[in-house]
Amino acid sequence: MTQQKATNITWHEGDVTQRERQDLLGQKGATLWMTGLSGSGKSTVAVALEQVLLNQGIAAYRLDGDNIRHGLNKNLGFSADDRAENIRRIGEVAKLFTDACVVAITSFISPYRADRDNVRKLHEAANLPFIEVFIDCPLAVAEQRDPKGLYKKARAGQIKGFTGIDDPYEAPTNPELHLDTSKLSVEESVRKILDLLNERGILQAD
Amino acid sequence: MTQQKATNITWHEGDVTQRERQDLLGQKGATLWMTGLSGSGKSTVAVALEQVLLNQGIAAYRLDGDNIRHGLNKNLGFSADDRAENIRRIGEVAKLFTDACVVAITSFISPYRADRDNVRKLHEAANLPFIEVFIDCPLAVAEQRDPKGLYKKARAGQIKGFTGIDDPYEAPTNPELHLDTSKLSVEESVRKILDLLNERGILQAD
Repeated sequence: MTQQKATNITWHEGDVTQRERQDLLGQKGATLWMTGLSGSGKSTVAVALEQVLLNQGIAAYRLDGDNIRHGLNKNLGFSADDRAENIRRIGEVAKLFTDACVVAITSFISPYRADRDNVRKLHEAANLPFIEVFIDCPLAVAEQRDPKGLYKKARAGQIKGFTGIDDPYEAPTNPELHLDTSKLSVEESVRKILDLLNERGILQAD
Repeated sequence: MTQQKATNITWHEGDVTQRERQDLLGQKGATLWMTGLSGSGKSTVAVALEQVLLNQGIAAYRLDGDNIRHGLNKNLGFSADDRAENIRRIGEVAKLFTDACVVAITSFISPYRADRDNVRKLHEAANLPFIEVFIDCPLAVAEQRDPKGLYKKARAGQIKGFTGIDDPYEAPTNPELHLDTSKLSVEESVRKILDLLNERGILQAD
C-alpha cells in the first residue's frame, strides 16, 4: 500500500447516486431488522452475523441497546411516545447506513408492528432494502434463558410493562425471514440470513 | 465473483474490536466536522471529498441538511434547545459511522463552539478520531455567493436569527484544519483534507 492512498482528485457536481456508490464499494446496503422477545437470541445472531460479514470484507454494523440507548437515544425514556421515537430514530439511522452501502443490523425488541412498519415504509420510499427478521422462540424458552434476569424481575413486579409479561409483543405478520431459535442453531440462523442476502444480491454490486 | 460471497461462518463471542474492524475493512473511520457560515463552501468541499474518497474505494458518507433535517431530525425546530439537540444527534450518528470505520463528513453551520466541543468530547471519550474543519471565508464573500438567497432574506428581515447576520458564528479556536475558501480552490481544500487523513493514517488500517 502506498503512503498516499487518495491522490486522484476528480469529482462531478452533486450527489453520488446509489448505483455509483454500490459500484465503488462493491456491495449494497440493507437494513436487517431483528425483532423478537427479550432472550429470543437477537443479539446472539446479530453478533455472529456481523462478524461473518466483516470476515468477508463486507461493511456491516450493529445498532443495539449498547450504542444507541447510551448515545443517540439517551434522552428518551420508556413512555409510549419515547418508545416510538426510539424506534423511529433507530430506523432513520439504519436507513443512513443502508444508504451508505453498509449492512445495518438492528437488534431491538421493537414489539409494536406500527413502529416497525414505519421503518419499513421509510426504506421503501427511498428504494432501500429493509429485511425484517423475526427472531422467534416460545416465551417459555426465552424466559428459561433469561440472560439478563429480566423476566424474573418482571414476574416479581420489579419491572413494569415488560414485553411478553405485561406488555404485548406484536409478531410480524409477513417478515422476510422467520427464525425459530428454539429449533435452529446460531450457525443455521446466520446461514439463512446470508442465503437471503445472497439471493437479493446485497453482498455485491450489480 | 462467486455466487455465494459469504459462506465462511465463523465468529467469536462478543463485540468486534475497533482494531479487528479496521483490519477487516482496511480503513479507519473518522468524523470530519465541517463548520462555517452559510455560503462558506462546506457542502461543495464535502461533496467533492466524499467522491474522491469513494473513487479510491474508501467508505465515506456525508451527513447534511438533506438527509438529516428531513429524516432523523425532522421533529426538531430552531429554538436554542432544538438547535443544540440537532447537533448532538448528528454528532452521535457521525460517531456511529466512525465506529463502523466509515469516514463521516458532516456539513452543518454548527455555529456554537459548545455544541461542537460536545461532539468532540463524545469522540475522544470513545477514542475515535474527530477532525474539525473550519470552512472559512469573509462574511462579505459568503453573502456575495448567497447560493440559496438566504442572506438576502435575512437582510430583508424575512429570516430571523440567521448566522452571521443577527445570530453569532463562534469560529473554532483550535480546529484541525482551517481552510479559507476565498483563497483556496475546491481541489486545494480537498487535497489539504486528504493530506491530513493520510498523515493520521485514517485511509488504511494500521
